[in-house]
Amino acid sequence: MFTLKQVIVVRTDLNMSKGKLAVQVAHAAVSAALEAQKHASEWFQEWLSSGQKKIVLKVSSERELLEIYEKARYSGLPTALIADAGLTELPPGTVTAIGIGPAPDEKIDKITGHLKTL
Amino acid sequence: MFTLKQVIVVRTDLNMSKGKLAVQVAHAAVSAALEAQKHASEWFQEWLSSGQKKIVLKVSSERELLEIYEKARYSGLPTALIADAGLTELPPGTVTAIGIGPAPDEKIDKITGHLKTL
Repeated sequence: MFTLKQVIVVRTDLNMSKGKLAVQVAHAAVSAALEAQKHASEWFQEWLSSGQKKIVLKVSSERELLEIYEKARYSGLPTALIADAGLTELPPGTVTAIGIGPAPDEKIDKITGHLKTL
Repeated sequence: MFTLKQVIVVRTDLNMSKGKLAVQVAHAAVSAALEAQKHASEWFQEWLSSGQKKIVLKVSSERELLEIYEKARYSGLPTALIADAGLTELPPGTVTAIGIGPAPDEKIDKITGHLKTL
């Protein structure tokens, strides 16, 4: 039996406050989970019933974040790209975080295994 | 037309790392959203299509967190209580965060309107 996780990758170069950062991570988690619920429902159900494991990883640029996002999409994993509405702190449309999965650990690790935890 | 939001309340007295805290907030956001999807589907759909507004608020004790959780449940709002699995940083079963909503702003404000943002 394989285990499943969801990974959220967030930019640290934007110097977001702790609260702002937590909201971006939560947006990514909810959006990627709903994407999985629609398009990878077995992974979604298994992940949910095993405690919805989540890991938050960091990158330091928009380019790095978008590269990882594209790799995850290309691999067919459930993904979500979060752009901030810009009401506080950041210019509208700033890409802040991505969510990947829930999906099997090894499929996600191929894409994000080199990143450090937040 | 009323507007909807989701509120996540998190304990600051546990001195969680930024990453740990973000994971707890994300757990609460996903769990409360799925609860709303099941039991308050109109609120859920409206919230999702209007940009899934989220606010993170703070409390400084377990007692305060549990009191707010009980009030929200008693009011019939979608809720989720998050207890940490205890693999890192915290003892197993430590209650870390709650999610309330999505629900109409004014229903949530009656319960959490006195709290400060994280």
